[in-house]
Amino acid sequence: MYRDRIRLPSLLDKVMSASEAAALIQDGMTVGMSGFTRAGEAKAVPHALAERAKVTPLKISLMTGASLGNDLDKQLTEAGVLSRRMPFQVDSTLRKAINAGEVMFIDQHLSETVEQLRNQQLKLPDIAVIEAVAITEQGHIVPTTSVGNSASFAIFAKHVIVEINMAHNPNLEGLHDIYIPTYRPTRTPIPLVKVDDRIGSTAIPIPPEKIVAIVITNQSDSPSTVLPPDIDTQAIADHLIGFFKQEVDAGRMTNKLGPLQAGIGTIANSVMCGLIDSPFEDLTMYSEVLQDSTFDLIDAGKLSFASGSSITLSSRRNADVFGNLERYKDKLVLRPQEISNHPEVVRRLGIIGINTALEFDIYGNVNSTHVCGTRMMNGIGGSGDFARNAHLAIFVTKSIAKGGAISSVVPMVSHVDHTEHDVDILVTEVGLADLRGLAPRERARVIIDNCVHPDYRQALNDYFCAACALGGHTPHILRDALSWHMNLEETGKMLAV
Amino acid sequence: MYRDRIRLPSLLDKVMSASEAAALIQDGMTVGMSGFTRAGEAKAVPHALAERAKVTPLKISLMTGASLGNDLDKQLTEAGVLSRRMPFQVDSTLRKAINAGEVMFIDQHLSETVEQLRNQQLKLPDIAVIEAVAITEQGHIVPTTSVGNSASFAIFAKHVIVEINMAHNPNLEGLHDIYIPTYRPTRTPIPLVKVDDRIGSTAIPIPPEKIVAIVITNQSDSPSTVLPPDIDTQAIADHLIGFFKQEVDAGRMTNKLGPLQAGIGTIANSVMCGLIDSPFEDLTMYSEVLQDSTFDLIDAGKLSFASGSSITLSSRRNADVFGNLERYKDKLVLRPQEISNHPEVVRRLGIIGINTALEFDIYGNVNSTHVCGTRMMNGIGGSGDFARNAHLAIFVTKSIAKGGAISSVVPMVSHVDHTEHDVDILVTEVGLADLRGLAPRERARVIIDNCVHPDYRQALNDYFCAACALGGHTPHILRDALSWHMNLEETGKMLAV
Repeated sequence: MYRDRIRLPSLLDKVMSASEAAALIQDGMTVGMSGFTRAGEAKAVPHALAERAKVTPLKISLMTGASLGNDLDKQLTEAGVLSRRMPFQVDSTLRKAINAGEVMFIDQHLSETVEQLRNQQLKLPDIAVIEAVAITEQGHIVPTTSVGNSASFAIFAKHVIVEINMAHNPNLEGLHDIYIPTYRPTRTPIPLVKVDDRIGSTAIPIPPEKIVAIVITNQSDSPSTVLPPDIDTQAIADHLIGFFKQEVDAGRMTNKLGPLQAGIGTIANSVMCGLIDSPFEDLTMYSEVLQDSTFDLIDAGKLSFASGSSITLSSRRNADVFGNLERYKDKLVLRPQEISNHPEVVRRLGIIGINTALEFDIYGNVNSTHVCGTRMMNGIGGSGDFARNAHLAIFVTKSIAKGGAISSVVPMVSHVDHTEHDVDILVTEVGLADLRGLAPRERARVIIDNCVHPDYRQALNDYFCAACALGGHTPHILRDALSWHMNLEETGKMLAV
Repeated sequence: MYRDRIRLPSLLDKVMSASEAAALIQDGMTVGMSGFTRAGEAKAVPHALAERAKVTPLKISLMTGASLGNDLDKQLTEAGVLSRRMPFQVDSTLRKAINAGEVMFIDQHLSETVEQLRNQQLKLPDIAVIEAVAITEQGHIVPTTSVGNSASFAIFAKHVIVEINMAHNPNLEGLHDIYIPTYRPTRTPIPLVKVDDRIGSTAIPIPPEKIVAIVITNQSDSPSTVLPPDIDTQAIADHLIGFFKQEVDAGRMTNKLGPLQAGIGTIANSVMCGLIDSPFEDLTMYSEVLQDSTFDLIDAGKLSFASGSSITLSSRRNADVFGNLERYKDKLVLRPQEISNHPEVVRRLGIIGINTALEFDIYGNVNSTHVCGTRMMNGIGGSGDFARNAHLAIFVTKSIAKGGAISSVVPMVSHVDHTEHDVDILVTEVGLADLRGLAPRERARVIIDNCVHPDYRQALNDYFCAACALGGHTPHILRDALSWHMNLEETGKMLAV
């Protein structure tokens, strides 16, 4: 069976077991693995590596596209394999190790990792481990459900291990568009001017002699864990759709809107689902992860094309989409995350970027990553790649968390991932704040009036008024600015409301 | 005399006095004026407008390229003319009004203002006031010592007032390269692949009937106020040159380095001066403002080409450069700030961006704008345009200020303009911290060890160690994180050292 998937016969003798392949990874190595938003990660080799490390301890520096599925970050963490990890993760066990200072985590804009590798500002991977549906006649690698950083990892690494995953539909071949920017100082423009442009190849071009091992697997991606829309996410979607209608009425957008980007997770997915019943048509996506909502929108006839770097689906949608791939294939492309998230392309296309905030402050600064300024949740991911250059940089969150103990709108964010300069629109279930063209004091007014939960509105208003009395372009009372976070750490609640 | 400068004869009857032209500006209008880093600003009309407002009050929303010279922001502020101001300023009187909440200031990435205008996300200017050396046979406007946002302002405004400034060398014509990106969704790549590429026209193309007034002036730009290099700025330059040598030795750069960008001001100018005695050769600049150091480097045979959006010189250099423009003209180009600062071009060319920090923290977050988190200094300017996409994002500052009362390195910055994700290299006179590929706890170690003034090193180390004991990816003690700033506000010193 797998012989059909390895179309360069000379590579057939590289087939070996996962543990044999994992033995090629040595203590102290830098390893680049496929995987983006828990899609298309190499599965057997990292598992075998973790098993081996239980017996013979070793440490590696691991870089991926983004998060891994199948509990691999958990297994690698528990086996003590990870000394360094970049550029993103979502695993609770790894998160604990990061916050304990046991794993050095480098939280990066997702478009930048391979740029830094290309410029040798990060250590190049010694070895790459890439999941594939096939190896072509030329020995090129056909990725599975994500491209992520796989292409550049395979190009930069001295050696490549390929996992041929029989569980993936071989018809994924043809979905990918592998384009690698040329080297400076002779780099040319990225020739992508429409979301559906194809500018590269359908497989990762490497010399076949770099492939030192091929492992045959048969294991699915982990299903996504997004929750269904609820009354709050529906309200957020409704506010945003109302805003889009106003933009269309004002002549600033057409009924097609612009290319949409939506961050991973429940809220952004729900907001996209909300577009199914909207008046907008012939929508497109230029995003990093394609979730359930992408395919719901295609099925509803609302979405005509989606460009991403991965496909991450719930159990509900997985078999349906990948079992009927021909129904979607001409409406999809998967690109390297350097291209899906590239500032050049994001600015050119005029993306509408919708990402989730952990918290934001009354002046429009957004924290996407750090609980109380110290504890890492997941990472900034691609949100900065999109927000900085988007036509509309939108951040969404529920106005409160933990049953009301936490307000998502605070006097001063405890960590800044997106500055006031980069945030256009903020939305909670309470309402929407349009910050475009406003000075900080004006932003505070519309944020407090429109986005804050009623239980916290008076307190934020009092803070703002007292700060204004002290003066400043961005008025703050330094002694109180982080007091809500201190209260939360000390009492479990931001305010005694 | 001025008749030679107005080469479309039908426009000669538009010549009028500054007060007549200023009368075209009405209460409540949005006005776009030329001017970038105190170079090439319209001079007579804003002055006449301020004079008029003393008698007949009026308010306008004023947008420029960046800062204005000749005390115009001061005059306009004192006359109560400014209700809104964007995207940058450096005037102490205006600064006071901004911090008092009297003028609404919108502090923007300098590449983004006209993008937001193009998308009608900001109110389009009713009228543009543009300084010129000439009007061509076609009625197109030839700018003077800056391009800034002048081209887009003239294109977007309903009416245009031109100030022909006889004090500028008419030989400035030919220096400019006016390129305007096409509209979305059919925008094409910016066809600039080398710093010396010319991709546009030498004058601003508008229909001549939009020119409603021409005012003849004869007044110089204000001289720049940069201070000469001192022992600290020389030390910063030396650290940076040492670092560049290491990069060349490591094969990450050639002896030409990459295209250099340097922010405005004394420190960045001094760092550039430091390159005169460096071993690097055939240097290029792709920057926003060209200062004395640019011409010193050209004279020293070190710099082969400089692209900017303005030329701002000291009294020492001004007559020499503009009186001998033919000596420099084939080594210079001035572009719209949207292009000089464009993320697409910055990323493609691999800029080395050197900008000044007001303060930075032990994790590498940079504050460029707000004193103690509240009071605006000048604005973020182009630093974010460059830092986010640069090959090397470098921030420089002296380790202490106000005779040691202030440490420029703090536990947590009081305002974030550049996040930890965007900062590669930090330099003070004490030393250089290379943050590339480091996790936050590792960054803190190299920053404390290399950049902090000895008087503050122990205190920052104590903070860091105590914070690490509490845990977290980015360890902080929230109660103490901003205490240095609180001390400064309450006692005039950050620490009792």
